[in-house]
Amino acid sequence: MDRTKRTELTVMVMVTRGGMVAVQERAGRGWDGLIFPGGHVEQGESFADAARREVREETGLEVKGLTFCGVVHWAQRRTDERYLAVLFRGEGEGELLPATREGRNVWMPLAAYRAASGKAPGMDEYLACFTGEAAELFALYDEAGTDRLTRQ
Amino acid sequence: MDRTKRTELTVMVMVTRGGMVAVQERAGRGWDGLIFPGGHVEQGESFADAARREVREETGLEVKGLTFCGVVHWAQRRTDERYLAVLFRGEGEGELLPATREGRNVWMPLAAYRAASGKAPGMDEYLACFTGEAAELFALYDEAGTDRLTRQ
Repeated sequence: MDRTKRTELTVMVMVTRGGMVAVQERAGRGWDGLIFPGGHVEQGESFADAARREVREETGLEVKGLTFCGVVHWAQRRTDERYLAVLFRGEGEGELLPATREGRNVWMPLAAYRAASGKAPGMDEYLACFTGEAAELFALYDEAGTDRLTRQ
Repeated sequence: MDRTKRTELTVMVMVTRGGMVAVQERAGRGWDGLIFPGGHVEQGESFADAARREVREETGLEVKGLTFCGVVHWAQRRTDERYLAVLFRGEGEGELLPATREGRNVWMPLAAYRAASGKAPGMDEYLACFTGEAAELFALYDEAGTDRLTRQ
C-alpha cells in the first residue's frame, strides 16, 4: 500500500545576532513582505543542510548553533497534499549581503520585526514557533481557502 | 512547477511515567522488536493529533504535555521519495493495555530499554532524539541499501 503523501518540504531560519534578526524584504514572488530566509529542501538534503544552504544563498551568512524550533504544517482537507515548513534558529556569522535576487536584507531588532506592519503572511504565527511558544502550527486547506494556523 | 516529494509521514512517541517508558513488543510486522507506539499520519491530521491517536490506539493511554523532540528523516538518493518520523515525548495517563494487535505492552525503566538487546532497528539512534541529544537524524537510501543515520 502506498502510504506516501505529496509533500512540499521547506525550511525557514530565524538568524540572530544579539537581539537582531536577519530580515529579507521579498517582493514580486507571490509571498511578499518582510520574511526570514528559507526555501525548498533539495534532492538528498536534510532539513538542517537545507537551512544552512538557504541562509548562505539568501544572506551570505553562516549559521552556527542551528536549533530546531518546530514545524508549520498545512494539509489539504481531502487529498494527500501537504506543505511543511521546518523552522530553525541560529546565530549568523559573517557579513549580511545587502541584497540578493530574493530582495533586500537588513538586520532588525526582533521587537521591531514583531511590530512591523509589512510582514509576510503567517509570520505572526511563525514567530510563536521560532520563539518556542508552539512546536507545531497546523491548518487545513482546500479550493475554498485556508483555515487559520492553530497550535497543536 | 511541482515541488512536492512522495513522503511517508509518521510519528513515534516516548510515553513516560516517572522513569518508566511504555514499550511495545512488536512481532511479525516487518519492523519487529521493542519499540515505542507510533504510526502513519492520517488524512487531515496534524503530527500532534497523530501522536495522541496512535498512543491511545496502541497503549490505551492519554498523553499529556506532548513535547516535540525532533525528526528522523530518510531520503532516497536519486528520487523524490522521503520518509519522516516526527518524534514526541509526553506523560502517559491511564491504564496501559497489556496487549493490542500491535503486540504486548509493558512499562520498563528507560535505562532498561536502553540496555535491552531486542530493540527494533534504529531505536538506539532514535533515543538520542527522544532524549534531546539530536534534533534531526538523517540518512540516504537507495536500492542497494540504507546509510547510517547521522546527527544533523
